[in-house]
Amino acid sequence: MIKVKVYVTLKEGVLDPQGKAIEQALQAKNFQGVRDMRVGKYMEFYLNEDEATDHQIQEMCEQLLANPVIEDYRYETEEVISV
Amino acid sequence: MIKVKVYVTLKEGVLDPQGKAIEQALQAKNFQGVRDMRVGKYMEFYLNEDEATDHQIQEMCEQLLANPVIEDYRYETEEVISV
Repeated sequence: MIKVKVYVTLKEGVLDPQGKAIEQALQAKNFQGVRDMRVGKYMEFYLNEDEATDHQIQEMCEQLLANPVIEDYRYETEEVISV
Repeated sequence: MIKVKVYVTLKEGVLDPQGKAIEQALQAKNFQGVRDMRVGKYMEFYLNEDEATDHQIQEMCEQLLANPVIEDYRYETEEVISV
């Protein structure tokens, strides 16, 4: 099995009100130094070896996991021994 | 400046209906091999060197960024040269 980890982040320049809210909440809790908080998504899942091609994973990201208009994505794969 | 990347994931055993929904949507789009999709959050922000202690970052995670009852978190830090 292949473990796939996908990170989806907002593109630079896209406003991130959720990140801003978290930043302000941290500042209000006395973590004043927090700057430029950006929030994204992290997804992990498993694929069979034969399906875990770069093409396949990119298709998944572009069709469903990320919105390519406003989001960037990157992914990592890692072989795991299935028990 | 220190760039901090925080990954928040649901603990093992905690049901992840959002992950399940994404998994089923991918399967319906002919990515049948997807298994065990889990969705988490990914956050990145900047701190000044003097504030970027492990203790400080753990406090942020436990007080606000993660819900320690049902979520695990891990983080990475990385020095960046501020322009």
